[in-house]
Amino acid sequence: MKNKLTYILCCLLQLCFLTSHAQEAVTTDVAPGIKKISTGVIDKLTPYSFCEEKPLTDALAKLPAAKLPFDVNAIRVNITDRGVLVEIPLDDTEQLYGFGLQIGSFNQRGLRKKPIVNDNPSADLGYTHAPTTFYVSNKGYGILVNTTRYTTFYCGTTAKNNGAAVVKNNTGGNSVDELYKNKDNGSGNVSVDVPGAKGIEIYVFEGPDLLNVLQRYNLFSGGGALPAMWGLGVKYRVKADFSQQQVGKMAAYFRANHIPCDVLGLEPRWQTAAYSCSYVWNNQFFPSPNEFIDTMKNKGFHINLWEHAFVSPKSPLYEPLKTKSGDYLVWNGLVPDFADPSARKLFADYHQETFVKHGISGFKMDECDNSNLTTGNSTWSFPEHSRFPSGLDGEQMHQVFGLLYQKTVYNIYKTLNLRTFLDVRASSSFASSYPAALYSDTYEHDEYIRMIVNSGFSGLIWSPEVRESKSIKDFMRRSQTAVLSAQTLYNSWYLQNPPWLQIDRDKNNKNELMPEAKQVEADVRTLLNFRMSLVPYLYRAFADYRLKGIPPFRALVVDYPQDKNTFDISDEYMIGQNILAAPLTEAADERKVYLPAGNWYDFNTNQKFEGGKSYTIKPSYTQLPIFIKEGTILPLAKPVEFITPDTKFEINCKVYGANPVSTSLFEDDGITFNFQTGSYNNVELSYMNNKGSVKRSGGFKKQRYVVKGWEVIK
Amino acid sequence: MKNKLTYILCCLLQLCFLTSHAQEAVTTDVAPGIKKISTGVIDKLTPYSFCEEKPLTDALAKLPAAKLPFDVNAIRVNITDRGVLVEIPLDDTEQLYGFGLQIGSFNQRGLRKKPIVNDNPSADLGYTHAPTTFYVSNKGYGILVNTTRYTTFYCGTTAKNNGAAVVKNNTGGNSVDELYKNKDNGSGNVSVDVPGAKGIEIYVFEGPDLLNVLQRYNLFSGGGALPAMWGLGVKYRVKADFSQQQVGKMAAYFRANHIPCDVLGLEPRWQTAAYSCSYVWNNQFFPSPNEFIDTMKNKGFHINLWEHAFVSPKSPLYEPLKTKSGDYLVWNGLVPDFADPSARKLFADYHQETFVKHGISGFKMDECDNSNLTTGNSTWSFPEHSRFPSGLDGEQMHQVFGLLYQKTVYNIYKTLNLRTFLDVRASSSFASSYPAALYSDTYEHDEYIRMIVNSGFSGLIWSPEVRESKSIKDFMRRSQTAVLSAQTLYNSWYLQNPPWLQIDRDKNNKNELMPEAKQVEADVRTLLNFRMSLVPYLYRAFADYRLKGIPPFRALVVDYPQDKNTFDISDEYMIGQNILAAPLTEAADERKVYLPAGNWYDFNTNQKFEGGKSYTIKPSYTQLPIFIKEGTILPLAKPVEFITPDTKFEINCKVYGANPVSTSLFEDDGITFNFQTGSYNNVELSYMNNKGSVKRSGGFKKQRYVVKGWEVIK
Repeated sequence: MKNKLTYILCCLLQLCFLTSHAQEAVTTDVAPGIKKISTGVIDKLTPYSFCEEKPLTDALAKLPAAKLPFDVNAIRVNITDRGVLVEIPLDDTEQLYGFGLQIGSFNQRGLRKKPIVNDNPSADLGYTHAPTTFYVSNKGYGILVNTTRYTTFYCGTTAKNNGAAVVKNNTGGNSVDELYKNKDNGSGNVSVDVPGAKGIEIYVFEGPDLLNVLQRYNLFSGGGALPAMWGLGVKYRVKADFSQQQVGKMAAYFRANHIPCDVLGLEPRWQTAAYSCSYVWNNQFFPSPNEFIDTMKNKGFHINLWEHAFVSPKSPLYEPLKTKSGDYLVWNGLVPDFADPSARKLFADYHQETFVKHGISGFKMDECDNSNLTTGNSTWSFPEHSRFPSGLDGEQMHQVFGLLYQKTVYNIYKTLNLRTFLDVRASSSFASSYPAALYSDTYEHDEYIRMIVNSGFSGLIWSPEVRESKSIKDFMRRSQTAVLSAQTLYNSWYLQNPPWLQIDRDKNNKNELMPEAKQVEADVRTLLNFRMSLVPYLYRAFADYRLKGIPPFRALVVDYPQDKNTFDISDEYMIGQNILAAPLTEAADERKVYLPAGNWYDFNTNQKFEGGKSYTIKPSYTQLPIFIKEGTILPLAKPVEFITPDTKFEINCKVYGANPVSTSLFEDDGITFNFQTGSYNNVELSYMNNKGSVKRSGGFKKQRYVVKGWEVIK
Repeated sequence: MKNKLTYILCCLLQLCFLTSHAQEAVTTDVAPGIKKISTGVIDKLTPYSFCEEKPLTDALAKLPAAKLPFDVNAIRVNITDRGVLVEIPLDDTEQLYGFGLQIGSFNQRGLRKKPIVNDNPSADLGYTHAPTTFYVSNKGYGILVNTTRYTTFYCGTTAKNNGAAVVKNNTGGNSVDELYKNKDNGSGNVSVDVPGAKGIEIYVFEGPDLLNVLQRYNLFSGGGALPAMWGLGVKYRVKADFSQQQVGKMAAYFRANHIPCDVLGLEPRWQTAAYSCSYVWNNQFFPSPNEFIDTMKNKGFHINLWEHAFVSPKSPLYEPLKTKSGDYLVWNGLVPDFADPSARKLFADYHQETFVKHGISGFKMDECDNSNLTTGNSTWSFPEHSRFPSGLDGEQMHQVFGLLYQKTVYNIYKTLNLRTFLDVRASSSFASSYPAALYSDTYEHDEYIRMIVNSGFSGLIWSPEVRESKSIKDFMRRSQTAVLSAQTLYNSWYLQNPPWLQIDRDKNNKNELMPEAKQVEADVRTLLNFRMSLVPYLYRAFADYRLKGIPPFRALVVDYPQDKNTFDISDEYMIGQNILAAPLTEAADERKVYLPAGNWYDFNTNQKFEGGKSYTIKPSYTQLPIFIKEGTILPLAKPVEFITPDTKFEINCKVYGANPVSTSLFEDDGITFNFQTGSYNNVELSYMNNKGSVKRSGGFKKQRYVVKGWEVIK
């Protein structure tokens, strides 16, 4: 009877909605250059509803005047018994990008994409670790459909039966050659199908330029993430069954061999139970964890703990979370309803008291990406029809589970005024402010490079980790890519020794090192030292991400949206303002690199190249495949082995070309949020009349950068 | 205003539903051993709603008394704002099969399956050419969720958070070895998630045995299909750009070289437009089509026409279908609303007048499987949010488009009292009565074998076609599989010459024949002659399919549901009552064959084997890998090159073992439905006291089988 009443009430509510349904959609300005279209009964829990960060309106206001290449009212929303259909204008020439961390595709024009959370690119349906329902156009706008529902985007691939069809001049494809060539890409719009929705919110991010669109998106989400500075160093994850003593030995190896390392990651065995998780130190392997953390800290290592969010009956969190979890178990463990603030708080408080207060610097948040989806066996996550006390169903929760998990853990650090750099296996929309790097098991190097390029379209950080390798060449090229990415990570969770000593998994675990081990180790040291040299430059790029919303890693088309040659380039990208990276895989010892307008310098040879053309490069294993834009002042640090708040970087500036543009470094303590209240400096580097100068301004009292020299490259 | 009113009415309707929602599900007996559970507001257009065939209740009533291993009321249905959730009991030991023509998996226990229409098995999500929402258990029952919506089945893989979770004895998987071993397969039920549904119909097919379940399913669907007898011969599809003259030349080749062939299939170029279709003869290539059909007929060839259902603006069908089509075009062509009888009639009438009345014997109905789904480019079919005048949306239409297309074309022949054998790229539930063979481009030989085995669980006919090959071995093994399947098809739509003359596509099209061409041709002739020998036996098997619902091709577990060794065998199958087939691929020259209870004879060596064990066989390219059950009388015909209603089969009976069981042949004209009104004979073959006997009973006046000899194998 109660049920019946609920349904009747529910239905009356729907009546109200349906009355409003016939009304027009409402468009509002929510921030400079950002509009929101709302219509129908909108889900209470949307990706944006979980975004606690405030839009950085000051920074938004400083962007060039916004402009949309079409009338916003041309966006049509249709609500039916199936759900919501959104149609957005699309002109014949524009190019589309986004949909989160796409693995298999780059330019999405002409494709259908269903960005749903999963680790398996599965025939390029759109499955991804980070299913943002967000795309951008090179014409300078972005469309975000703010929903947790599985959504399909038809990017200019449909044609309507509206009576306009005519007999075309072509033959209709009646010969074999024409069979697979049909390019009749239909009408000029993007159709977005959101089954099950009864209303929708659409965020429209205006330009004028593509970069401005991304800036607006990131600034609206609270700005990009600024990781703790040590996060930009090197992370190494030890074998899953290492004991406290073995981790200590590994740490000693790094320092003895002067291989840079800032973070050591522990894998499952540190807990008493891992599938599902107890979140309790396993004293058999870690008899004195807090002492261990301190010892490591004194040697310059931060400790990161692997876990996932499925709570074992063995966990102290089990009882408190029992009624704040979904109605299905995973590995016999609870699925906390992270959409409920009180569930997040329980989880966070426990982690804060048990781990963070004792010095744990970060977590690797695994298994939040519904990774079983494509293996047939569904024990790896909760079913899509799960129900959570917050009202989300399993499908909706899947889409935001990684997002909410990040939020839960990130808030611990924020509360403590501590910055961090996390690892997470799934993310979503409006997540740019979370300092968490996505990772994957997929491990195709060319895809890993494409994911760096795609990450910038959706406010994501991607970590192309290195594990075992097919060959030394494969290993070295992967290492180069790792060095030229947001997080340099060697993930040895199933390797006894660092992979540079033995690339083969079995031999590695039998301690059979390669004959070339010492040479490869030396080469890796060279690469990692370069990474450490680049940290100040990268840190500036991340500060620009935080403060201006500029993605530190982004496709060439972002900076050169009018250059047709960039439209499909998914294996080159910009790092910060001035570096163009073009990683190689083991496929070949050389590759073509397209350089956009302007002049560019090969970082390794200092040779100057004219833009607008392609060149072939052939870097060695220790030469990073990067080009520097003419006019750049590139600050490179003397490599350190790890970074502390006291680290003072000795900078050498490389000046490229005759008319260098002044640049700056971002100077703060590197570990707190004090920069938000002004405790940081801009360290401006200029070079004029054959002389370099350093100008410091801001509220941070310490000097972290000392410029030691200037090197001019003509 | 009108819109608003519609919605208010709609909502009031929902109110009525919601009142009924709180009511219990209603269970009714719909046929002997078949129950229907109904609850909520059920979609008007379901797969069963399209089934015009009447249940064969007499045959159903003859089956053993039905039995369900659980109380039917234990099936729970829950309707929420997400859709419908169905939970069906599952005990710890039972094995599950079905979900249509699954490509990647066989035993579905422990898997999640989403049977949605597509040609790409894509990480074994469940995508298939024939997405039946139907599974069966070896415990002797079947469950069919009668919906056109995309549905997910969790086959015993979920565990509920119901307070029952306890700390288990295992360690919770905290060591690396345990990471991937978690076998905690959760509670005892199958969960079925039907998003978007507001009510549901569930058909429960009872046993007692698994075979009875399949019989009930097929009989309920109108019985299995009985193809025209010529359909069991050999089909050859010619190159897509062949002219009338070239087809004639190919026909002459077959007869001159005494290679059996009953059907020649024409590919796209016969039409004036093919993507989309005009359904108009292209007179440039076929200047006199009706004369051509007659000439071919006189030589014993049936002509089959390739097409798909997307109607070109160049087609005479375009204007009439314009308002009876979906709101999106495919290749600039209409998508007829085949759920609307008047659209089907227009399409059928045109085909009847233009083609069937002039002697076209069948069609290949292509492109109805949403095959673009996994390629990213969605121009290959209509979007899921399409709307059709009948009320179906695109998702729902996709699931039944192939089904309705078959129905449309099959009805032409039924109306004319002509039997046929069609090709179709997609099917669905309740389709067993359609004489249409499914085909695919996927072309993995081991998968093609598995699909034969899976086809029997869902009332489907599968054609593992042969095209080019990697090696002669690959080609010959594929040919063997084709001979041991429901349709023997060589698909040379992109090959100038028969593939047995050149397996390599490029060389084939350059007319560079293999040095071994004549030998391979001879070997293929041997195999195809065997096929023709088997036709009377196969025809009986199909008659049993039609009259008793017994799948002619089925997994060993169907006949031996208690034998654990059969539970996972997906590369052996039964053909008819007495033949066990175990095809080889090019992977090896020998294979293991498991033989179930009883004694079996190797067809090639006549060696006798004891069942319950595995043996290794090593058949040559011309030896079919089959075993014959002890007690079998196997009627084999002297091969003919093609089959007409006048063909008289000269039969030699092979008698296996000392106590043969009498068997029978099904005798009719082979081309009409007159058997339905009694115009057929049972030709009983017995062997006793060293003497064979033939006893004919029934209402068919002609004799098509003459028994010439008996061969006893001890």
